[in-house]
Amino acid sequence: MKVLVIGANGQVGTHLIKSLAERGHEPVGMIRNTDQVKAIEDAGGKTVLGDLEKDFSQALYGCEAVIFAAGSGPHTGADKTIMIDQEGAIKAIDEAKQQGIKRFVMLSTVGSDDPEKGPDNMKPYLYAKKRADEHLKATNLNYTILRPGSLSNDPGTGQIRAAESLEDKSGQIPREDVAAVLTEILENENTYHRTFEILNGDLSISDALGQL
Amino acid sequence: MKVLVIGANGQVGTHLIKSLAERGHEPVGMIRNTDQVKAIEDAGGKTVLGDLEKDFSQALYGCEAVIFAAGSGPHTGADKTIMIDQEGAIKAIDEAKQQGIKRFVMLSTVGSDDPEKGPDNMKPYLYAKKRADEHLKATNLNYTILRPGSLSNDPGTGQIRAAESLEDKSGQIPREDVAAVLTEILENENTYHRTFEILNGDLSISDALGQL
Repeated sequence: MKVLVIGANGQVGTHLIKSLAERGHEPVGMIRNTDQVKAIEDAGGKTVLGDLEKDFSQALYGCEAVIFAAGSGPHTGADKTIMIDQEGAIKAIDEAKQQGIKRFVMLSTVGSDDPEKGPDNMKPYLYAKKRADEHLKATNLNYTILRPGSLSNDPGTGQIRAAESLEDKSGQIPREDVAAVLTEILENENTYHRTFEILNGDLSISDALGQL
Repeated sequence: MKVLVIGANGQVGTHLIKSLAERGHEPVGMIRNTDQVKAIEDAGGKTVLGDLEKDFSQALYGCEAVIFAAGSGPHTGADKTIMIDQEGAIKAIDEAKQQGIKRFVMLSTVGSDDPEKGPDNMKPYLYAKKRADEHLKATNLNYTILRPGSLSNDPGTGQIRAAESLEDKSGQIPREDVAAVLTEILENENTYHRTFEILNGDLSISDALGQL
């Protein structure tokens, strides 16, 4: 499957390109400048230029699915939270609709279902993610919204827990496992029109997804 | 009509309380601290305590209409753009729905129909306003969305131009005139489910609204 990865240069994105390629997909990483080409190609992907703050419609041409794994990150201001996390995502969703690309996977976060319960300094980010998720849910795309808890850079374990709302949201999950889950759900129709949370656990990814 | 004014302490809000009171309405200004009571009472309004970043549902009790005229202003960061201009508005809309308050007037801005065309430094604000407006349009409330162009502190003239999309968006409009328009449209059913722009012009407010 030819799949556009938005945020390919991010911390999850790099694992994701590799994981998709290993699974036999054809990942295309959307990048903002050519310095990033080598890392994506080394991971087994192709690249296309596109900037979330501009018109990136051409990046979606010919793709069968879109995975939105971009984030403005903690080192930019809330203006980028609006422009990237919220509006970049909404533009990608609208563009997928426009181009008839039915499969859309959103990397969201635990807490975006109820931003008011989050810490004050996280609320703007959680609201931005919530609005993007809501925009996606209101489409007729075959969407999946994945909400991992706290991310770590530990090596992946392949072991997770998953639920619409995890009772215990403590713990972490390696970014490598998040990438593996994104890859696993791409063609898993059981996850269409679903929103769920993941964290480290003791089930294989396919077992955890099967129990949803 | 008992009407809650959110943003009563703002630059449009103070004119609005006065204008509503003069028209025989019963304006209630939502304020964050008791220092603001005197200004509202001097303008002819009552007050209720409420903070857009917290639960302010009690501020709406018993009101027949809500006018959202709050703005985080140019001196705060984009985190407040999300929390006040976007999410504060969305909370007010949801709360009006919840409490069965059918009439909702939103003070929006020229440019929020197409933020991409705005200057880069205004885009986050314009997107936040757009999302709030869209949220309102998706309800079954009797809404009106008013989008003035560039605001001035000149004295009101009572003369405006109005259209769904003004061909010529140059010029300004005094905040006092914006307040007069908000008051005029409150009970004007011709403006229900409508979104329109206003600027200085040469028609009386009622004539301009009648031509919509």
